[in-house]
Amino acid sequence: MKYRLLAPGPTPVPEETLLELAKPVKYHRTPEARQILAEVLQDLQYVFCTRNSIMPMTSSGTGGLEAAVANCLPAGSKAICLIAGRFGERWRSICKAFGVETVAVNVPYGQAVQPEQLAAALKAHPDAAAICSTLSETSTGVAHDIAAFGKLVAATPALLLVDAISGLGAMECRTDDWHIDINVTGSQKALMLPPGLAFLSVSEKAWKQIEKNTSPRAFYFDLKKMRNGLASGDTPYTMAHTLVQALRVSLKQTKAEGMENIWARQARSAAAARAGFQAMGLELFASRPANGLTVAKVPEGIDGTVLLSKLEKQYGLKLAGGQDHLKGKIIRLAHMGYIDQFDVLAGLAGVELALLEMGYALEPGRGLSAAQQVFAKSLSRPEHVPV
Amino acid sequence: MKYRLLAPGPTPVPEETLLELAKPVKYHRTPEARQILAEVLQDLQYVFCTRNSIMPMTSSGTGGLEAAVANCLPAGSKAICLIAGRFGERWRSICKAFGVETVAVNVPYGQAVQPEQLAAALKAHPDAAAICSTLSETSTGVAHDIAAFGKLVAATPALLLVDAISGLGAMECRTDDWHIDINVTGSQKALMLPPGLAFLSVSEKAWKQIEKNTSPRAFYFDLKKMRNGLASGDTPYTMAHTLVQALRVSLKQTKAEGMENIWARQARSAAAARAGFQAMGLELFASRPANGLTVAKVPEGIDGTVLLSKLEKQYGLKLAGGQDHLKGKIIRLAHMGYIDQFDVLAGLAGVELALLEMGYALEPGRGLSAAQQVFAKSLSRPEHVPV
Repeated sequence: MKYRLLAPGPTPVPEETLLELAKPVKYHRTPEARQILAEVLQDLQYVFCTRNSIMPMTSSGTGGLEAAVANCLPAGSKAICLIAGRFGERWRSICKAFGVETVAVNVPYGQAVQPEQLAAALKAHPDAAAICSTLSETSTGVAHDIAAFGKLVAATPALLLVDAISGLGAMECRTDDWHIDINVTGSQKALMLPPGLAFLSVSEKAWKQIEKNTSPRAFYFDLKKMRNGLASGDTPYTMAHTLVQALRVSLKQTKAEGMENIWARQARSAAAARAGFQAMGLELFASRPANGLTVAKVPEGIDGTVLLSKLEKQYGLKLAGGQDHLKGKIIRLAHMGYIDQFDVLAGLAGVELALLEMGYALEPGRGLSAAQQVFAKSLSRPEHVPV
Repeated sequence: MKYRLLAPGPTPVPEETLLELAKPVKYHRTPEARQILAEVLQDLQYVFCTRNSIMPMTSSGTGGLEAAVANCLPAGSKAICLIAGRFGERWRSICKAFGVETVAVNVPYGQAVQPEQLAAALKAHPDAAAICSTLSETSTGVAHDIAAFGKLVAATPALLLVDAISGLGAMECRTDDWHIDINVTGSQKALMLPPGLAFLSVSEKAWKQIEKNTSPRAFYFDLKKMRNGLASGDTPYTMAHTLVQALRVSLKQTKAEGMENIWARQARSAAAARAGFQAMGLELFASRPANGLTVAKVPEGIDGTVLLSKLEKQYGLKLAGGQDHLKGKIIRLAHMGYIDQFDVLAGLAGVELALLEMGYALEPGRGLSAAQQVFAKSLSRPEHVPV
């Protein structure tokens, strides 16, 4: 049976990139390896829409978040954490682990924090050193209005730290125009690579904070050391350099397509997925949905865990479920990175068939047609051919 | 030209393992993925010679060292750092970054710290919370007598933290019998994998210290969180799971050969490399040489940087040079992991040819013959065939 990975990370990796990973390992401290790293970091500036330097880390995305907190926020400083799901919670947990006082702005899972809420929090806490937000909250499929957040935060001395792990490369994210001070992503989402690397863009405003911060709480994730290392052409510690080398291959595809085209394509896939689920009678979970994944509520009377298991075992479709209290209640379908429009159709088709088999009343093809109508909208059809 | 990676990390990766890395990426939180991780951690217990639990980290080896320090040593505690090279220095730098007071026991590069020196330091600092040592000091090729160190430290309340990154799997290292409390290795040395993973074995004595330590200085590298996660079958954050999956393939080779056989084979390769260099008239740099790499002094009048460049460009042989003040003065030839005895001969042959070309007086084949004589010694030859 053909296996289709349609979960919001890790995501499928292009075949050419996989083949790169099978190449013999070469030494990591050579002019050639430095050139590859430099090229990848430069290409990532394009993906991040930034002129800021990009710092690479051999770690999961969480390591990147820790780097942001441990470098920017001294113990005893204050951070406003915007919490709309599990990864907003993770920001808070990291801040707590590093002795940073946290102010939480909570919304129910499935909702997005509103810019007005952030404005009120900033007003109530003018001493906040940072605002921590997710771009795309992977646990709920919600997208935050980072452009609006950035405008508010830029007017203050605080830094805007963004977990863009499942958002960057899957939806519009303009690091510089949106005033994101530290933007964090991981390799295993829209960048089309296996997990193992995290990347952070760091603004001048953030570097100033980092230079002022003398708390001894970062060594492996020390951004200053990484910047100095890169300035002399190399990383302070051994990078997962075969992943960097493979990322170059995936980034070639990204550059060839172009970020704006990718955003538009992913927006179409997202719109199609939403239309498909809704046409099946499923409710969307996210009030302000992200474009990298679509989250639908499991219909009343259907066991979400059984549904996911059927999709995987009978159809080779690996979607993700809900975590913690959402387990069994939602399904999450990814459409970022190397997941294309026909993969989305495969996912929707599988959900239709599995639901039918579970006794859910549904006209087969309804979700698929709704999705296809979205895809058809973007066609440029000649006027003179009769439909 | 055929490329031979003969540097002390990253090292060559077996072809079957590379092919595993080229397989389509699957989801990381499934019973199958958990089973693979559990199997790898169990196999690593065999490699570490320990019954202690093994904690995996997606990071370079340095991340593993940081995990040891940040979890075991509260700020203000004291550590004795045994410094015989760059990686002993790294222990000290990490301790300093985390506010740990350090007592350095230094020896000149090329020498090993003696057990008597450690005994004296322990006597002078009975309040030391940990002793940090390298097993194999990758920068000089020196091996420390960890068995002797362990005996001394076990009689005190202090922990023995060992950087075994370039030693473990390449030479005898008995974690439990030698009383190593935290033993750290990386994936890119004798484990025959690309860089990206670090592993730590943690003794009961160490867990007790970790549980007492309430300093908020670890999140990503929090060992308690990792242990709890593994107890329920999974890691707290996304592992570089494709590397874990590939490691299983390399570990199959390791298990099939057997640790004692591997140690014996690597010891032969090391003895052959030493004999080879000496027969060429080169002096060995390490007073107490490790078995994973051999370090030779570059002869008077020969530019070590040119020698290494010739080896790489003319012969595809990638050896490593010295770092910092040793740049140009030593060459480092690795013989660990997937580097076998004939690779060692290739390395020696290249050095002979390159030296000859640089005007060094040498009878061609002299180093090779000396090495081959070492290999021949271990043959079991029938008595009745006349030589």
